[in-house]
Amino acid sequence: MKSDFFQPAPLRSELSFDGRRRVIIDRVSPEIDGGRFPAKRASGERMIVEADIFTDGADTVEAELLYRPCGAKDWVSVSMSPLGNDLWTASFITGAPGSYEYTVRAWVDHFLTWQKGLKKKIDAGQDVAIDLKIGAAIVELGAARAKGEDAGTLHHHVGILTVGDPVTAVDAALGEELTAAMQRCPDKSIATMYEKVLLLQVDQRKAGFSTWYEFFPRSWGSEPGRHGTFRDCMTILPRISQMGFDVVYLPPIHPIGQTKRKGRNNSLVAAPDDPGSCWAIGSADGGHTAVHPELGSMEDFEAFVREAELNGISVALDIAFQCSPDHPWVLEHPQWFRWRPDGTVQFAENPPKRYEDILPIDFETKDWQNLWTELRGVFLFWIGKGVKIFRVDNPHTKAFPFWEWAIGTIRDAHPDTVFLAEAFTRPKLMARLAKAGYTQSYSYFTWRNNKHDLQQYLTELTRTELRDFMRPNFWPNTPDILHEELQSGSRAKFIIRMALAATLSSNYGMYGPAYELCEHLPVAHGKEEYIDSEKYEIKSWDLDRPGNIRAEITAVNRIRREHPALQQTADITFVRIDAGEGREHEQLMGYVKRSDDGRDVILTVVNLDDHHTQGGWLRFPLELFGLPHTQQFMVEDLLSGNSFTWNGEWNFIELNPHHMPVHIFSVKLPS
Amino acid sequence: MKSDFFQPAPLRSELSFDGRRRVIIDRVSPEIDGGRFPAKRASGERMIVEADIFTDGADTVEAELLYRPCGAKDWVSVSMSPLGNDLWTASFITGAPGSYEYTVRAWVDHFLTWQKGLKKKIDAGQDVAIDLKIGAAIVELGAARAKGEDAGTLHHHVGILTVGDPVTAVDAALGEELTAAMQRCPDKSIATMYEKVLLLQVDQRKAGFSTWYEFFPRSWGSEPGRHGTFRDCMTILPRISQMGFDVVYLPPIHPIGQTKRKGRNNSLVAAPDDPGSCWAIGSADGGHTAVHPELGSMEDFEAFVREAELNGISVALDIAFQCSPDHPWVLEHPQWFRWRPDGTVQFAENPPKRYEDILPIDFETKDWQNLWTELRGVFLFWIGKGVKIFRVDNPHTKAFPFWEWAIGTIRDAHPDTVFLAEAFTRPKLMARLAKAGYTQSYSYFTWRNNKHDLQQYLTELTRTELRDFMRPNFWPNTPDILHEELQSGSRAKFIIRMALAATLSSNYGMYGPAYELCEHLPVAHGKEEYIDSEKYEIKSWDLDRPGNIRAEITAVNRIRREHPALQQTADITFVRIDAGEGREHEQLMGYVKRSDDGRDVILTVVNLDDHHTQGGWLRFPLELFGLPHTQQFMVEDLLSGNSFTWNGEWNFIELNPHHMPVHIFSVKLPS
Repeated sequence: MKSDFFQPAPLRSELSFDGRRRVIIDRVSPEIDGGRFPAKRASGERMIVEADIFTDGADTVEAELLYRPCGAKDWVSVSMSPLGNDLWTASFITGAPGSYEYTVRAWVDHFLTWQKGLKKKIDAGQDVAIDLKIGAAIVELGAARAKGEDAGTLHHHVGILTVGDPVTAVDAALGEELTAAMQRCPDKSIATMYEKVLLLQVDQRKAGFSTWYEFFPRSWGSEPGRHGTFRDCMTILPRISQMGFDVVYLPPIHPIGQTKRKGRNNSLVAAPDDPGSCWAIGSADGGHTAVHPELGSMEDFEAFVREAELNGISVALDIAFQCSPDHPWVLEHPQWFRWRPDGTVQFAENPPKRYEDILPIDFETKDWQNLWTELRGVFLFWIGKGVKIFRVDNPHTKAFPFWEWAIGTIRDAHPDTVFLAEAFTRPKLMARLAKAGYTQSYSYFTWRNNKHDLQQYLTELTRTELRDFMRPNFWPNTPDILHEELQSGSRAKFIIRMALAATLSSNYGMYGPAYELCEHLPVAHGKEEYIDSEKYEIKSWDLDRPGNIRAEITAVNRIRREHPALQQTADITFVRIDAGEGREHEQLMGYVKRSDDGRDVILTVVNLDDHHTQGGWLRFPLELFGLPHTQQFMVEDLLSGNSFTWNGEWNFIELNPHHMPVHIFSVKLPS
Repeated sequence: MKSDFFQPAPLRSELSFDGRRRVIIDRVSPEIDGGRFPAKRASGERMIVEADIFTDGADTVEAELLYRPCGAKDWVSVSMSPLGNDLWTASFITGAPGSYEYTVRAWVDHFLTWQKGLKKKIDAGQDVAIDLKIGAAIVELGAARAKGEDAGTLHHHVGILTVGDPVTAVDAALGEELTAAMQRCPDKSIATMYEKVLLLQVDQRKAGFSTWYEFFPRSWGSEPGRHGTFRDCMTILPRISQMGFDVVYLPPIHPIGQTKRKGRNNSLVAAPDDPGSCWAIGSADGGHTAVHPELGSMEDFEAFVREAELNGISVALDIAFQCSPDHPWVLEHPQWFRWRPDGTVQFAENPPKRYEDILPIDFETKDWQNLWTELRGVFLFWIGKGVKIFRVDNPHTKAFPFWEWAIGTIRDAHPDTVFLAEAFTRPKLMARLAKAGYTQSYSYFTWRNNKHDLQQYLTELTRTELRDFMRPNFWPNTPDILHEELQSGSRAKFIIRMALAATLSSNYGMYGPAYELCEHLPVAHGKEEYIDSEKYEIKSWDLDRPGNIRAEITAVNRIRREHPALQQTADITFVRIDAGEGREHEQLMGYVKRSDDGRDVILTVVNLDDHHTQGGWLRFPLELFGLPHTQQFMVEDLLSGNSFTWNGEWNFIELNPHHMPVHIFSVKLPS
């Protein structure tokens, strides 16, 4: 159980390492659980690495960040800079999706140490004759390492330091020519490499910035009541694309079981024509690698995926590892299920609740290797059909080690895959799924509705270690969750929650048709289930119905596409908004986001009150940008198109929810 | 460079592990830098371990903390308890000094899972006939694992569950007899072991609780002006012991160089009879393994160590790895030093300052293996003479990897050694020295004088990761540091700083004679050096001089010895003291400390103002002890002997610094 990791070089009694490596590299970040898990960035994002770096005594230290694709031989080096308090930093822009590794190297620079001491001695009026000779020896060693013209330059300086007149020698010793040439040939012979090589998972761009639209294909038949097909669904792709969505997510598309099929509104007995829940997977027509016959053929599905790509849209499939009693696996692999003393398969239960239409898989089966391989094969099958994005149903009810293995090995071959964990569960489990490989995670956003809760949740997501491995995906609704906040049907509230999701998180999505149309009736008071839920029946949506918020969704998505500040989640700063008398405003919430390069700055202000106009004094944090609190600057509301000149940090804001409960300001600051 | 650590089981593509181990063990603490460094506890202290533990789904989890001395085969197991939010904990009292390892094991308990479900189904009035049969199968497997009488008990229960009447079967299923027997034979066959085995360094008791007295042996000659000897010093040991000190720390006792010897008050030229600084180590009489001839013989030193032990006192030696130009190493190992172009050895410098009486050792020497071995040999030599405690001079100016190797390998053979790092340097370096093996660390206490700074510093030491590996040692003065606060000579101020050090930190010390006598004159205004410093001359101390604070020191040390709450540093809670109108009192500071077992509770209150009587309302945190804010309880001031009855949390406190600026209350709470 003890690995080499526990016998670091300095404890090996045989002294078979190089003890002259005097620089210490400590607390490199990001480093998830001591390097056990990779940090994550999307392709094209900036990766910032920090480390404590120092040595004994007063010698000058230099350091570099090293990174490379896993398997590559050569490191790419980025020079690190000190931030103070022995903390150093460097960054790079990530490349193509894949696994990368990074570490830090640092060394004592004897030339810079000598040069610094020389300068101090000269300033103190001390004799430096011997120091110049010491420097000549250091430069001579540099000349032996140097390449090209530098070697000549350095040899020339050795001469000056050795035999030049004192004034010339000192000028040369402190001069830029010598310094630059020496810095091109640092002596790394006894440099320290950080003890660990850390892993970085670079994901495809949509891992970091994506806009999801969920719909049930069977509701898009060419005429009301007719079962929709993949071919039918092709016709709505241009419309979804025009609204600014770039991922369409389909609930399970597999054959649906007959045994114990659920009827409308989750009734225990289905009517003969009820289509059943598409999460009750598997029938005589096949299981997780088949398509429900009424949706069309596999070729139709592949054509749908291609058509989506032509519209700039990725198709995300829902993978739910559970079986209807009619699933082929029950007969083919009975050992993957638990059997009861009465000879039946154990159905899903959470006592005293019973879910008899669903059989859970037994991850403690002795045949677990074949089970794991078959389950992973489901993903590989759909990858073969052109799918790159998977939304995984309830991953926290399947064994965690399976996910780490399955996602890890799939990503090795297909680094552009994205896995979204639908785990609405306890915080530690959600974090572990993200560490174990999930690219994105459903979040608690749906249940964070007041200003305090939203700010606290965003702080947790962006200011703790979660920032480096868990990418939240914010959904104002799902087919399972119609939050009480939306049940009034207030159009402004739907706009508010959509705008919050879209501007707080770079990844967001909605159960589209119901959200666009502000569907708001629950199955019963106090429930979060929709009445007449599409989960159990075929719906027919009139997307042009009055009161829809298509225009607002389209506008917000356009702003997201045009503004890099909204294409990332980690950089967010909440601003102070006063209601008067120094009291924090309870309904107006504002936050600033900046793009990686700092050039794009967006200030979003939301009125959380969907009934009343709210006004308050907003303090824009000019200090974030190194500007005085009296700075004059322009802001443009990207929703209304209106521009304003703001004089200094404090400015009055007012939002009428019946007109538009949100400002999304592009902030134009002097650079 | 990649170790096995980076290929955890779930990523191995060959599936050669057991994937059925479904429990996840995450974020075990303490875990220093991902397990790279050991956590530290003193012998007899409680070691508390926490971990996030959970599994997929709703199954019931059980967990145990495992620990053992390194090299032992069998683990000791301690059952863990859930604290909520998937966090589990367990603890144990540490044993003899040495290296220990610990980890966590957890498993799904199918019996408890079944029992929990059964109870819910019964409560819901469901039929449980099949469930009882399922339980019988689980109990039957338990019977096969059980030992002794339990096997029979479990077999009997299998019968009841299988064929008993329903009421009897249900009673038995939920009964204590079955539950207890099953809990004695849990199924750990597919338990999860945490991926790492972590290290715990258990140090001798004085590592965690020690009271240091520093003095210069040469000043204790039998008559004024005569060079003191080890034999002379034996006579003051009973007095030091009676004052409550258990470590005497001697500045270097080695031969002192002649070349460039420093004179009185650090003058560059010594008078013929100047004894020189004992940190200029080495002469023709020997180096780091010799004693200065005027102090006596090696036998005298050994006799002194034995005499100290008889007085309950450990002798701490000062190990300063630097050489006078006369040190034997300069001739014997010239390769361990840097040589200048003029043929001289490079002396210590921090440009433009020069320290020509001191030669630094070159840790980049090609002969580093021999150098390291020789330096470590210095410690081993003195360990052979009975010394267990070392105060190391400026360890941050020697290579960090050397310390990790030297202390690590010395502790393997001598686990009861203690190393105190005299590194008054930047925070990251101090932390690294502690991680690399130092048992105790000098601290910033000397420069933390107001309430805000003291509270902030203690919070950093006790509420961050430092708590688990860095043990501060608080010194109100040293021969190098007479802080400005003390330069007024105010007797109350000396008592305040002593009491703060002694009650804030379980390890504290003083440069004794000067402190007892309130010596307070600096060499110059704005300097922290003593005038006529004992570092450069032989002093003669009249310890009975009026104004001394021996009685106060003795009283505080007695209270420390009698109260376990003051024998640890990590458990400290600052209390609120109001000056009136809700304002925090700026001069009165109070803090509560609790012993490991919670039975000893000490409330210290200090008036930081050494001139004026200060009063205020102190809020005792009754909630820490689960008591109502109206609780009546007794407090006894251990310094004055006076007892008070306090009614509820708020009580008035007043301290007259001219009488006694400190209360140390023993708090008697109902249990």
